[in-house]
Amino acid sequence: MENVLRQNERLDDLHLNGYKIIQNTGLFCFGQDAVLLAAFAKTKRGENILDFCTGNGIIPILMCGKYKYGSYSGLEIWAESAELARRNVELNNLGNRISITTGDLREAEKIYAPSSFNVITINPPYMNGKSGPVNPAEPMAIARHEIKCSLTDIMEKTEKLLTFGGRFYMIHRPQRLTDIFYEMRYFKIEPKRMRQVCPKKQKEPTMVLVEGVKGGNPSLKVLPELVIYNDEGCYTDEVMKIYYG
Amino acid sequence: MENVLRQNERLDDLHLNGYKIIQNTGLFCFGQDAVLLAAFAKTKRGENILDFCTGNGIIPILMCGKYKYGSYSGLEIWAESAELARRNVELNNLGNRISITTGDLREAEKIYAPSSFNVITINPPYMNGKSGPVNPAEPMAIARHEIKCSLTDIMEKTEKLLTFGGRFYMIHRPQRLTDIFYEMRYFKIEPKRMRQVCPKKQKEPTMVLVEGVKGGNPSLKVLPELVIYNDEGCYTDEVMKIYYG
Repeated sequence: MENVLRQNERLDDLHLNGYKIIQNTGLFCFGQDAVLLAAFAKTKRGENILDFCTGNGIIPILMCGKYKYGSYSGLEIWAESAELARRNVELNNLGNRISITTGDLREAEKIYAPSSFNVITINPPYMNGKSGPVNPAEPMAIARHEIKCSLTDIMEKTEKLLTFGGRFYMIHRPQRLTDIFYEMRYFKIEPKRMRQVCPKKQKEPTMVLVEGVKGGNPSLKVLPELVIYNDEGCYTDEVMKIYYG
Repeated sequence: MENVLRQNERLDDLHLNGYKIIQNTGLFCFGQDAVLLAAFAKTKRGENILDFCTGNGIIPILMCGKYKYGSYSGLEIWAESAELARRNVELNNLGNRISITTGDLREAEKIYAPSSFNVITINPPYMNGKSGPVNPAEPMAIARHEIKCSLTDIMEKTEKLLTFGGRFYMIHRPQRLTDIFYEMRYFKIEPKRMRQVCPKKQKEPTMVLVEGVKGGNPSLKVLPELVIYNDEGCYTDEVMKIYYG
Protein backbone atom coordinates (compact mmCIF):
# COMPACT_ATOMS: atom_id res chain seq x y z
CA MET A 1 0.00 0.00 0.00
CA GLU A 2 2.91 2.32 0.79
CA ASN A 3 3.75 2.72 -2.89
CA VAL A 4 0.69 4.95 -3.41
CA LEU A 5 2.43 7.66 -1.38
CA ARG A 6 4.27 10.62 -2.88
CA GLN A 7 6.51 13.23 -1.26
CA ASN A 8 5.24 14.68 2.07
CA GLU A 9 2.42 12.13 2.18
CA ARG A 10 1.45 9.68 4.89
CA LEU A 11 -1.18 6.98 5.10
CA ASP A 12 -3.59 6.98 8.08
CA ASP A 13 -5.93 4.18 9.10
CA LEU A 14 -9.52 5.41 9.65
CA HIS A 15 -10.52 2.38 11.82
CA LEU A 16 -13.66 2.11 9.70
CA ASN A 17 -14.35 -0.62 7.12
CA GLY A 18 -10.59 -0.84 6.57
CA TYR A 19 -10.67 2.68 5.05
CA LYS A 20 -7.40 4.53 4.83
CA ILE A 21 -6.60 8.12 3.93
CA ILE A 22 -3.58 9.74 2.35
CA GLN A 23 -2.67 13.04 3.93
CA ASN A 24 -0.14 15.53 2.65
CA THR A 25 1.66 17.35 5.43
CA GLY A 26 2.23 20.29 3.08
CA LEU A 27 -1.56 20.66 2.70
CA PHE A 28 -4.21 20.79 5.42
CA CYS A 29 -4.46 17.54 7.40
CA PHE A 30 -7.84 16.74 8.93
CA GLY A 31 -8.28 16.94 12.68
CA GLN A 32 -10.70 15.97 15.40
CA ASP A 33 -13.24 18.48 14.09
CA ALA A 34 -13.73 16.56 10.82
CA VAL A 35 -14.28 13.31 12.72
CA LEU A 36 -16.80 14.93 15.09
CA LEU A 37 -18.66 16.57 12.22
CA ALA A 38 -18.94 13.29 10.29
CA ALA A 39 -20.28 11.63 13.46
CA PHE A 40 -22.80 14.45 14.08
CA ALA A 41 -24.15 14.64 10.51
CA LYS A 42 -27.05 12.38 9.62
CA THR A 43 -28.33 11.10 6.31
CA LYS A 44 -31.17 8.87 5.16
CA ARG A 45 -31.49 6.40 2.33
CA GLY A 46 -31.61 8.00 -1.11
CA GLU A 47 -30.17 11.36 -0.13
CA ASN A 48 -27.58 13.46 -1.96
CA ILE A 49 -24.90 14.90 0.26
CA LEU A 50 -22.53 17.75 -0.59
CA ASP A 51 -19.39 18.52 1.40
CA PHE A 52 -18.06 22.05 0.96
CA CYS A 53 -14.30 22.63 1.46
CA THR A 54 -13.80 18.87 1.35
CA GLY A 55 -9.98 18.99 1.51
CA ASN A 56 -8.64 15.44 1.18
CA GLY A 57 -12.21 14.07 1.20
CA ILE A 58 -12.27 13.00 4.84
CA ILE A 59 -15.92 13.91 5.58
CA PRO A 60 -17.59 12.04 2.67
CA ILE A 61 -15.25 9.08 3.22
CA LEU A 62 -16.13 8.85 6.93
CA MET A 63 -19.84 9.25 6.14
CA CYS A 64 -19.64 6.50 3.51
CA GLY A 65 -18.29 4.25 6.25
CA LYS A 66 -21.04 5.22 8.67
CA TYR A 67 -23.91 4.91 6.17
CA LYS A 68 -24.19 2.19 3.55
CA TYR A 69 -26.22 4.53 1.33
CA GLY A 70 -26.12 8.07 -0.01
CA SER A 71 -24.49 9.74 -2.98
CA TYR A 72 -21.72 12.14 -2.02
CA SER A 73 -20.19 15.17 -3.71
CA GLY A 74 -17.14 17.03 -2.46
CA LEU A 75 -16.13 20.52 -3.56
CA GLU A 76 -12.56 21.76 -3.06
CA ILE A 77 -10.95 24.95 -4.33
CA TRP A 78 -7.29 23.88 -3.99
CA ALA A 79 -6.48 21.67 -6.99
CA GLU A 80 -3.78 19.66 -5.22
CA SER A 81 -6.15 18.87 -2.33
CA ALA A 82 -8.96 17.93 -4.72
CA GLU A 83 -6.61 15.56 -6.53
CA LEU A 84 -5.63 13.99 -3.22
CA ALA A 85 -9.33 13.59 -2.38
CA ARG A 86 -9.87 11.75 -5.70
CA ARG A 87 -6.97 9.42 -4.91
CA ASN A 88 -8.46 8.78 -1.45
CA VAL A 89 -11.83 7.96 -3.01
CA GLU A 90 -10.14 5.44 -5.33
CA LEU A 91 -7.95 4.01 -2.57
CA ASN A 92 -11.12 3.06 -0.68
CA ASN A 93 -13.04 1.92 -3.75
CA LEU A 94 -15.66 4.60 -3.25
CA GLY A 95 -15.68 5.90 -6.83
CA ASN A 96 -19.32 4.83 -7.23
CA ARG A 97 -20.42 6.84 -4.16
CA ILE A 98 -18.22 9.95 -3.99
CA SER A 99 -17.52 12.49 -6.71
CA ILE A 100 -14.93 15.23 -6.14
CA THR A 101 -15.03 18.54 -8.01
CA THR A 102 -12.33 21.19 -8.09
CA GLY A 103 -14.06 24.53 -7.78
CA ASP A 104 -14.83 27.68 -5.84
CA LEU A 105 -17.68 27.60 -3.30
CA ARG A 106 -18.55 31.14 -4.35
CA GLU A 107 -19.45 29.74 -7.79
CA ALA A 108 -21.16 26.63 -6.47
CA GLU A 109 -24.45 27.34 -8.25
CA LYS A 110 -22.62 27.20 -11.60
CA ILE A 111 -21.34 23.74 -10.66
CA TYR A 112 -24.45 22.18 -9.07
CA ALA A 113 -28.17 22.51 -9.83
CA PRO A 114 -30.33 24.52 -7.41
CA SER A 115 -31.97 22.54 -4.56
CA SER A 116 -30.11 19.40 -5.60
CA PHE A 117 -28.80 18.32 -2.17
CA ASN A 118 -30.63 16.94 0.87
CA VAL A 119 -27.62 17.44 3.12
CA ILE A 120 -24.71 19.88 3.10
CA THR A 121 -21.73 19.44 5.42
CA ILE A 122 -18.83 21.81 6.02
CA ASN A 123 -15.76 22.04 8.21
CA PRO A 124 -15.00 25.62 7.18
CA PRO A 125 -12.14 28.01 7.81
CA TYR A 126 -12.75 29.24 11.36
CA MET A 127 -11.03 32.58 11.40
CA ASN A 128 -12.43 35.74 9.90
CA GLY A 129 -10.34 38.45 8.31
CA LYS A 130 -9.54 40.22 11.52
CA SER A 131 -8.38 37.37 13.77
CA GLY A 132 -5.16 35.38 14.08
CA PRO A 133 -1.98 35.36 12.01
CA VAL A 134 -2.47 34.20 8.43
CA ASN A 135 -0.45 31.12 7.49
CA PRO A 136 1.84 32.06 4.60
CA ALA A 137 1.48 28.58 3.01
CA GLU A 138 -1.54 29.26 0.81
CA PRO A 139 -3.48 25.96 1.09
CA MET A 140 -3.18 26.15 4.90
CA ALA A 141 -4.30 29.78 4.90
CA ILE A 142 -7.33 28.98 2.72
CA ALA A 143 -8.31 26.11 5.00
CA ARG A 144 -8.04 28.19 8.18
CA HIS A 145 -8.97 31.76 7.27
CA GLU A 146 -12.03 33.13 5.51
CA ILE A 147 -10.02 34.13 2.45
CA LYS A 148 -11.88 32.22 -0.25
CA CYS A 149 -15.19 31.78 1.56
CA SER A 150 -16.87 33.66 4.39
CA LEU A 151 -19.72 32.44 6.56
CA THR A 152 -22.00 34.62 4.43
CA ASP A 153 -20.79 32.88 1.24
CA ILE A 154 -21.35 29.48 2.85
CA MET A 155 -24.90 30.20 3.95
CA GLU A 156 -25.84 31.93 0.70
CA LYS A 157 -24.71 28.90 -1.34
CA THR A 158 -26.25 26.47 1.14
CA GLU A 159 -29.63 28.16 0.75
CA LYS A 160 -29.37 27.84 -3.04
CA LEU A 161 -28.24 24.21 -3.17
CA LEU A 162 -30.25 22.62 -0.34
CA THR A 163 -33.75 21.18 -0.89
CA PHE A 164 -36.55 22.67 1.22
CA GLY A 165 -36.34 20.81 4.54
CA GLY A 166 -32.77 19.79 3.74
CA ARG A 167 -30.16 19.71 6.50
CA PHE A 168 -26.95 21.64 7.02
CA TYR A 169 -24.18 20.42 9.35
CA MET A 170 -21.22 22.51 10.40
CA ILE A 171 -18.50 22.48 13.05
CA HIS A 172 -17.10 25.84 14.09
CA ARG A 173 -15.70 27.83 16.98
CA PRO A 174 -17.97 28.99 19.84
CA GLN A 175 -16.61 32.54 19.45
CA ARG A 176 -18.42 32.71 16.09
CA LEU A 177 -21.80 31.54 17.39
CA THR A 178 -23.55 34.88 16.92
CA ASP A 179 -22.21 35.14 13.35
CA ILE A 180 -23.32 31.55 12.72
CA PHE A 181 -26.88 31.94 14.01
CA TYR A 182 -27.30 35.36 12.44
CA GLU A 183 -26.19 34.23 8.97
CA MET A 184 -28.09 30.94 9.16
CA ARG A 185 -31.37 32.63 10.02
CA TYR A 186 -30.77 35.38 7.47
CA PHE A 187 -30.43 32.72 4.76
CA LYS A 188 -33.40 30.70 6.10
CA ILE A 189 -31.32 27.77 7.30
CA GLU A 190 -32.85 27.67 10.79
CA PRO A 191 -30.58 26.36 13.57
CA LYS A 192 -32.33 23.30 15.04
CA ARG A 193 -29.68 21.47 17.07
CA MET A 194 -26.47 22.63 18.71
CA ARG A 195 -23.85 20.70 20.61
CA GLN A 196 -20.82 22.19 22.28
CA VAL A 197 -17.59 20.24 22.41
CA CYS A 198 -15.51 20.63 25.58
CA PRO A 199 -11.99 19.27 26.15
CA LYS A 200 -12.99 18.28 29.71
CA LYS A 201 -16.29 18.41 31.58
CA GLN A 202 -17.31 21.85 32.84
CA LYS A 203 -14.56 23.54 30.85
CA GLU A 204 -15.13 26.17 28.18
CA PRO A 205 -16.18 24.64 24.85
CA THR A 206 -13.59 24.77 22.07
CA MET A 207 -15.87 23.69 19.21
CA VAL A 208 -19.56 23.74 18.41
CA LEU A 209 -21.60 21.45 16.17
CA VAL A 210 -24.66 22.95 14.51
CA GLU A 211 -27.54 21.46 12.52
CA GLY A 212 -29.79 23.73 10.46
CA VAL A 213 -32.91 22.99 8.43
CA LYS A 214 -33.81 24.98 5.34
CA GLY A 215 -37.18 26.61 6.03
CA GLY A 216 -37.31 25.12 9.56
CA ASN A 217 -39.36 26.69 12.36
CA PRO A 218 -37.47 28.65 15.02
CA SER A 219 -36.66 26.56 18.11
CA LEU A 220 -33.19 25.33 18.94
CA LYS A 221 -32.47 22.10 20.77
CA VAL A 222 -29.26 22.44 22.77
CA LEU A 223 -27.82 18.98 23.38
CA PRO A 224 -25.69 17.98 26.37
CA GLU A 225 -22.07 18.92 25.76
CA LEU A 226 -19.73 16.43 24.13
CA VAL A 227 -16.71 15.92 26.39
CA ILE A 228 -13.45 14.75 24.76
CA TYR A 229 -11.27 13.66 27.70
CA ASN A 230 -12.27 12.13 31.04
CA ASP A 231 -10.66 12.99 34.38
CA GLU A 232 -7.83 10.55 33.66
CA GLY A 233 -6.97 12.40 30.42
CA CYS A 234 -8.23 9.54 28.20
CA TYR A 235 -10.91 9.78 25.53
CA THR A 236 -14.42 9.50 26.99
CA ASP A 237 -16.47 6.45 25.99
CA GLU A 238 -18.47 8.53 23.54
CA VAL A 239 -15.36 9.81 21.73
CA MET A 240 -13.78 6.32 21.74
CA LYS A 241 -16.92 5.09 20.00
CA ILE A 242 -16.74 7.88 17.42
CA TYR A 243 -13.09 7.10 16.65
CA TYR A 244 -13.02 3.33 16.87
CA GLY A 245 -16.68 2.31 16.52
CA MET B 1 -42.50 42.09 60.52
CA GLU B 2 -45.45 39.83 59.65
CA ASN B 3 -47.88 42.78 59.91
CA VAL B 4 -46.60 44.20 56.61
CA LEU B 5 -48.24 41.29 54.81
CA ARG B 6 -51.61 41.45 53.06
CA GLN B 7 -53.81 38.70 51.62
CA ASN B 8 -51.95 36.03 49.52
CA GLU B 9 -48.59 37.46 50.56
CA ARG B 10 -45.61 35.76 52.13
CA LEU B 11 -42.27 37.04 53.37
CA ASP B 12 -39.06 35.36 52.10
CA ASP B 13 -35.56 35.81 53.49
CA LEU B 14 -32.99 36.63 50.79
CA HIS B 15 -29.98 35.52 52.90
CA LEU B 16 -28.28 38.77 51.91
CA ASN B 17 -27.68 41.75 54.24
CA GLY B 18 -30.83 40.69 56.13
CA TYR B 19 -32.92 41.63 53.06
CA LYS B 20 -36.42 40.21 52.84
CA ILE B 21 -38.96 40.19 50.04
CA ILE B 22 -42.73 40.13 50.03
CA GLN B 23 -44.15 37.87 47.36
CA ASN B 24 -47.79 37.62 46.33
CA THR B 25 -48.80 34.13 45.33
CA GLY B 26 -51.50 35.61 43.08
CA LEU B 27 -48.81 37.46 41.11
CA PHE B 28 -45.58 36.12 39.64
CA CYS B 29 -43.14 34.89 42.30
CA PHE B 30 -39.45 35.03 41.43
CA GLY B 31 -37.56 31.82 40.78
CA GLN B 32 -34.06 30.51 40.39
CA ASP B 33 -33.66 32.42 37.11
CA ALA B 34 -33.88 35.82 38.85
CA VAL B 35 -31.25 34.77 41.39
CA LEU B 36 -28.90 33.47 38.67
CA LEU B 37 -29.34 36.62 36.57
CA ALA B 38 -28.58 38.92 39.53
CA ALA B 39 -25.44 36.85 40.21
CA PHE B 40 -24.35 36.97 36.53
CA ALA B 41 -24.92 40.72 36.02
CA LYS B 42 -22.04 43.04 36.84
CA THR B 43 -21.92 46.72 37.64
CA LYS B 44 -19.22 49.23 38.49
CA ARG B 45 -19.13 52.26 40.76
CA GLY B 46 -21.19 55.19 39.51
CA GLU B 47 -23.36 53.25 37.06
CA ASN B 48 -27.08 53.52 36.43
CA ILE B 49 -28.87 50.19 36.17
CA LEU B 50 -32.34 49.59 34.72
CA ASP B 51 -34.29 46.38 35.27
CA PHE B 52 -37.03 45.74 32.72
CA CYS B 53 -40.05 43.63 33.82
CA THR B 54 -38.91 44.05 37.41
CA GLY B 55 -41.92 42.29 38.99
CA ASN B 56 -41.63 42.51 42.78
CA GLY B 57 -38.19 44.16 42.41
CA ILE B 58 -36.12 41.06 43.10
CA ILE B 59 -33.28 41.81 40.63
CA PRO B 60 -32.41 45.36 41.77
CA ILE B 61 -32.80 44.30 45.42
CA LEU B 62 -30.39 41.37 44.97
CA MET B 63 -27.96 43.58 43.05
CA CYS B 64 -28.07 46.22 45.78
CA GLY B 65 -27.03 43.50 48.20
CA LYS B 66 -24.18 42.36 45.96
CA TYR B 67 -22.86 45.84 45.16
CA LYS B 68 -22.61 48.68 47.64
CA TYR B 69 -22.95 51.21 44.80
CA GLY B 70 -25.12 51.89 41.77
CA SER B 71 -28.41 53.64 41.20
CA TYR B 72 -31.21 51.28 40.20
CA SER B 73 -34.47 51.76 38.29
CA GLY B 74 -37.12 49.10 37.86
CA LEU B 75 -39.89 49.19 35.26
CA GLU B 76 -43.04 47.09 35.69
CA ILE B 77 -46.23 47.13 33.63
CA TRP B 78 -48.53 45.45 36.16
CA ALA B 79 -49.54 48.10 38.72
CA GLU B 80 -50.05 45.66 41.59
CA SER B 81 -46.58 44.16 41.05
CA ALA B 82 -44.98 47.60 40.82
CA GLU B 83 -46.63 48.58 44.09
CA LEU B 84 -45.31 45.41 45.70
CA ALA B 85 -41.84 46.25 44.37
CA ARG B 86 -42.06 49.69 46.02
CA ARG B 87 -43.05 48.12 49.33
CA ASN B 88 -40.09 45.72 49.01
CA VAL B 89 -37.73 48.64 48.39
CA GLU B 90 -39.02 50.36 51.53
CA LEU B 91 -38.96 47.17 53.59
CA ASN B 92 -35.20 46.92 52.91
CA ASN B 93 -34.52 50.66 53.30
CA LEU B 94 -33.36 50.91 49.70
CA GLY B 95 -35.44 53.96 48.78
CA ASN B 96 -32.26 55.99 48.16
CA ARG B 97 -30.92 53.41 45.66
CA ILE B 98 -33.93 51.90 43.84
CA SER B 99 -36.74 53.71 42.04
CA ILE B 100 -39.71 51.73 40.70
CA THR B 101 -41.85 53.01 37.82
CA THR B 102 -45.16 51.61 36.64
CA GLY B 103 -45.04 51.59 32.86
CA ASP B 104 -44.94 49.75 29.57
CA LEU B 105 -41.54 48.66 28.22
CA ARG B 106 -42.79 49.48 24.72
CA GLU B 107 -42.99 53.13 25.82
CA ALA B 108 -39.73 53.10 27.76
CA GLU B 109 -38.17 55.98 25.83
CA LYS B 110 -41.03 58.24 26.97
CA ILE B 111 -40.19 57.31 30.57
CA TYR B 112 -36.36 57.41 30.51
CA ALA B 113 -33.87 59.63 28.62
CA PRO B 114 -31.95 58.06 25.70
CA SER B 115 -28.57 56.46 26.55
CA SER B 116 -29.19 57.03 30.25
CA PHE B 117 -28.28 53.56 31.58
CA ASN B 118 -24.91 51.78 31.79
CA VAL B 119 -26.54 48.44 32.50
CA ILE B 120 -29.90 46.90 31.60
CA THR B 121 -31.08 43.63 33.13
CA ILE B 122 -34.12 41.55 32.24
CA ASN B 123 -35.71 38.27 33.23
CA PRO B 124 -38.27 38.40 30.44
CA PRO B 125 -41.29 36.31 29.50
CA TYR B 126 -39.77 33.21 27.89
CA MET B 127 -42.54 32.01 25.65
CA ASN B 128 -43.38 33.51 22.31
CA GLY B 129 -46.88 33.74 20.90
CA LYS B 130 -46.95 30.25 19.48
CA SER B 131 -45.68 28.14 22.36
CA GLY B 132 -47.23 26.79 25.54
CA PRO B 133 -50.65 27.30 27.12
CA VAL B 134 -51.32 30.89 28.19
CA ASN B 135 -52.04 31.29 31.90
CA PRO B 136 -55.52 32.80 32.28
CA ALA B 137 -54.45 34.87 35.33
CA GLU B 138 -53.28 38.01 33.53
CA PRO B 139 -50.22 39.02 35.60
CA MET B 140 -48.90 35.44 35.31
CA ALA B 141 -49.53 35.41 31.56
CA ILE B 142 -47.72 38.75 31.08
CA ALA B 143 -44.73 37.50 33.07
CA ARG B 144 -44.46 34.25 31.13
CA HIS B 145 -45.62 34.97 27.58
CA GLU B 146 -44.54 37.64 25.13
CA ILE B 147 -47.89 39.41 25.33
CA LYS B 148 -46.77 42.88 26.40
CA CYS B 149 -43.17 42.68 25.22
CA SER B 150 -41.41 40.60 22.60
CA LEU B 151 -37.68 40.01 22.29
CA THR B 152 -37.72 42.58 19.48
CA ASP B 153 -39.33 45.17 21.79
CA ILE B 154 -36.76 44.41 24.49
CA MET B 155 -33.76 44.81 22.20
CA GLU B 156 -35.14 47.90 20.47
CA LYS B 157 -35.64 49.67 23.80
CA THR B 158 -32.32 48.42 25.15
CA GLU B 159 -30.50 49.95 22.18
CA LYS B 160 -32.24 53.29 22.84
CA LEU B 161 -31.64 53.43 26.60
CA LEU B 162 -28.15 51.95 26.95
CA THR B 163 -25.01 54.11 26.74
CA PHE B 164 -22.47 53.17 24.03
CA GLY B 165 -20.40 50.35 25.56
CA GLY B 166 -23.19 49.73 28.10
CA ARG B 167 -24.02 46.15 29.11
CA PHE B 168 -27.16 44.08 28.77
CA TYR B 169 -27.84 40.99 30.92
CA MET B 170 -30.63 38.52 30.26
CA ILE B 171 -31.61 35.01 31.29
CA HIS B 172 -33.69 33.03 28.82
CA ARG B 173 -34.39 29.57 27.44
CA PRO B 174 -31.83 27.81 25.21
CA GLN B 175 -34.58 27.11 22.64
CA ARG B 176 -34.68 30.86 21.94
CA LEU B 177 -30.93 31.28 21.41
CA THR B 178 -31.15 31.98 17.69
CA ASP B 179 -33.89 34.58 18.30
CA ILE B 180 -31.77 36.11 21.07
CA PHE B 181 -28.53 36.38 19.07
CA TYR B 182 -30.32 37.50 15.94
CA GLU B 183 -32.23 40.31 17.67
CA MET B 184 -29.27 41.37 19.78
CA ARG B 185 -26.99 41.76 16.78
CA TYR B 186 -29.73 43.42 14.74
CA PHE B 187 -30.06 46.07 17.46
CA LYS B 188 -26.26 46.38 17.87
CA ILE B 189 -26.16 44.83 21.33
CA GLU B 190 -23.38 42.35 20.51
CA PRO B 191 -23.42 39.08 22.51
CA LYS B 192 -20.10 38.92 24.36
CA ARG B 193 -20.56 36.22 27.03
CA MET B 194 -22.89 33.25 27.29
CA ARG B 195 -23.32 30.71 30.03
CA GLN B 196 -25.63 27.74 29.89
CA VAL B 197 -27.34 26.52 33.04
CA CYS B 198 -27.78 22.75 33.38
CA PRO B 199 -29.73 20.94 36.10
CA LYS B 200 -26.97 18.31 36.31
CA LYS B 201 -23.60 17.98 34.62
CA GLN B 202 -23.68 16.83 31.00
CA LYS B 203 -27.46 17.23 30.82
CA GLU B 204 -29.27 19.50 28.39
CA PRO B 205 -29.25 23.13 29.54
CA THR B 206 -32.57 24.53 30.76
CA MET B 207 -31.55 28.20 30.93
CA VAL B 208 -28.98 30.46 29.32
CA LEU B 209 -27.36 33.65 30.64
CA VAL B 210 -26.28 36.21 28.06
CA GLU B 211 -24.24 39.41 28.29
CA GLY B 212 -24.29 41.89 25.42
CA VAL B 213 -22.38 45.13 24.86
CA LYS B 214 -23.85 48.02 22.89
CA GLY B 215 -21.57 48.58 19.90
CA GLY B 216 -19.29 45.69 20.93
CA ASN B 217 -17.11 43.82 18.44
CA PRO B 218 -18.27 40.37 17.34
CA SER B 219 -16.70 37.53 19.35
CA LEU B 220 -18.58 35.51 21.91
CA LYS B 221 -17.00 33.99 24.99
CA VAL B 222 -18.82 30.80 25.96
CA LEU B 223 -18.24 30.11 29.64
CA PRO B 224 -18.21 26.67 31.26
CA GLU B 225 -21.76 25.57 32.04
CA LEU B 226 -23.28 26.39 35.41
CA VAL B 227 -24.48 23.16 37.04
CA ILE B 228 -27.28 23.40 39.62
CA TYR B 229 -27.27 20.01 41.33
CA ASN B 230 -24.39 17.64 42.04
CA ASP B 231 -24.58 13.83 41.74
CA GLU B 232 -26.12 13.64 45.22
CA GLY B 233 -28.97 15.94 44.17
CA CYS B 234 -27.73 18.84 46.33
CA TYR B 235 -26.86 22.34 45.12
CA THR B 236 -23.32 22.53 43.72
CA ASP B 237 -20.83 24.69 45.64
CA GLU B 238 -21.19 27.46 43.07
CA VAL B 239 -24.98 27.60 43.42
CA MET B 240 -24.77 27.41 47.23
CA LYS B 241 -22.48 30.44 47.08
CA ILE B 242 -24.94 32.31 44.83
CA TYR B 243 -27.85 31.58 47.19
CA TYR B 244 -26.21 31.86 50.58
CA GLY B 245 -23.01 33.85 49.93
